Amino acid sequence: RLLDDNDGLQLGGELRQVTILMADIRGFSALSQQLGPEQCVKLLNNYFAAMTEVVQRFRGTVDEFVGDGILVIFGAPLSDKDDCDRAIACAVAMQLAIKDVNARNRADNLPEIAMGIGLNTGDVVAGNVGSEIRSKYGVVGHNVNLTGRIESCTVGGQILASPATIAAASTQVLSGDKVTVSLKGMGDAVALTEILGVGMPYDLVLPQPVDEWQVSKDQIQ
Amino acid sequence: RLLDDNDGLQLGGELRQVTILMADIRGFSALSQQLGPEQCVKLLNNYFAAMTEVVQRFRGTVDEFVGDGILVIFGAPLSDKDDCDRAIACAVAMQLAIKDVNARNRADNLPEIAMGIGLNTGDVVAGNVGSEIRSKYGVVGHNVNLTGRIESCTVGGQILASPATIAAASTQVLSGDKVTVSLKGMGDAVALTEILGVGMPYDLVLPQPVDEWQVSKDQIQ
Repeated sequence: RLLDDNDGLQLGGELRQVTILMADIRGFSALSQQLGPEQCVKLLNNYFAAMTEVVQRFRGTVDEFVGDGILVIFGAPLSDKDDCDRAIACAVAMQLAIKDVNARNRADNLPEIAMGIGLNTGDVVAGNVGSEIRSKYGVVGHNVNLTGRIESCTVGGQILASPATIAAASTQVLSGDKVTVSLKGMGDAVALTEILGVGMPYDLVLPQPVDEWQVSKDQIQ
Repeated sequence: RLLDDNDGLQLGGELRQVTILMADIRGFSALSQQLGPEQCVKLLNNYFAAMTEVVQRFRGTVDEFVGDGILVIFGAPLSDKDDCDRAIACAVAMQLAIKDVNARNRADNLPEIAMGIGLNTGDVVAGNVGSEIRSKYGVVGHNVNLTGRIESCTVGGQILASPATIAAASTQVLSGDKVTVSLKGMGDAVALTEILGVGMPYDLVLPQPVDEWQVSKDQIQ
């Protein structure tokens, strides 16, 4: 689902439990300085096109493209029981789709990219925000900001999820290392979970070295 | 000027020198947790409506509302000699307009807000970014990110500008203290300039205590 400007579903605001997915290209700022402007936009558009296709497949709502970042919501404006599961599966599928993005980048003489994804689950305020001239359906609040902070902890190719997302998942999650970080607005140190794969009905696993894979398999939750 | 989605001015990307203005409500995340969802959206919309009006007056391009943030570009898609001057004047006018926003907030039983603004000048890549289904005119690159970092150094009511913005200004700038910060991606410590007012033809000054005012007047550049 993609929302157009002036998608007037809710004029006021409402509290919604959602899973928020934020992705960006790691090191894009430095990358953009090495590229010509047309290459830079071509690279972004290869990436956005592929990611939008994946998000639609998992019925996420693309709320924003900001710079090289993508903000996707699962659970607003429409919610479903499997919002969190679809968000996790979408994150894995997005990482898998980077392979095709990089194949296209190579064909276009563009550098390869790596993406980081942060996942968080919780209440947000959803509604139409903006001015009379320009408004859009969007989400705001503490949990949106928190997702950005989680995403900023990722390295290329990584998915990190908050404890709330892991708790809300009903699908099997193949998890890797816990990454303990101290995040502004999240109190004490918090253990983020690295997500390596997701169980049925999605059945998606990130490629990884064989020895690491054996260790990870033992950690299936 | 406001840009709609699918404002198809430039399909490819181009390098543009622009002045970037980023504003946000200081402490909005905490504020949003104290407010009901409808109040939260009402507060945001009071604020966005007033700020959009000011931006239009100074012929800035509202590129984004993200959460409580506003990204405005001066110099793309159309550029003019006074892009930087209008950006500085716009920042001062936006801070002055917060008085009216807060009057309306009081009338609506909403809390008062304070806004921080960051200004930066330099090359960005401008073009239509997104997917086939949803694209928008936007700017990306190092200088956009840098503006966000400058903005994050502000306190409520404050405008901080990068050295590049001060150098590009041809209008008189009433400046306050220098704020020396170390910003990721900006090399060594950089001295940001606090902007308190702007000369003719704009002639706008932020209210401030009389004793500070005398000191500041001596600093007119």
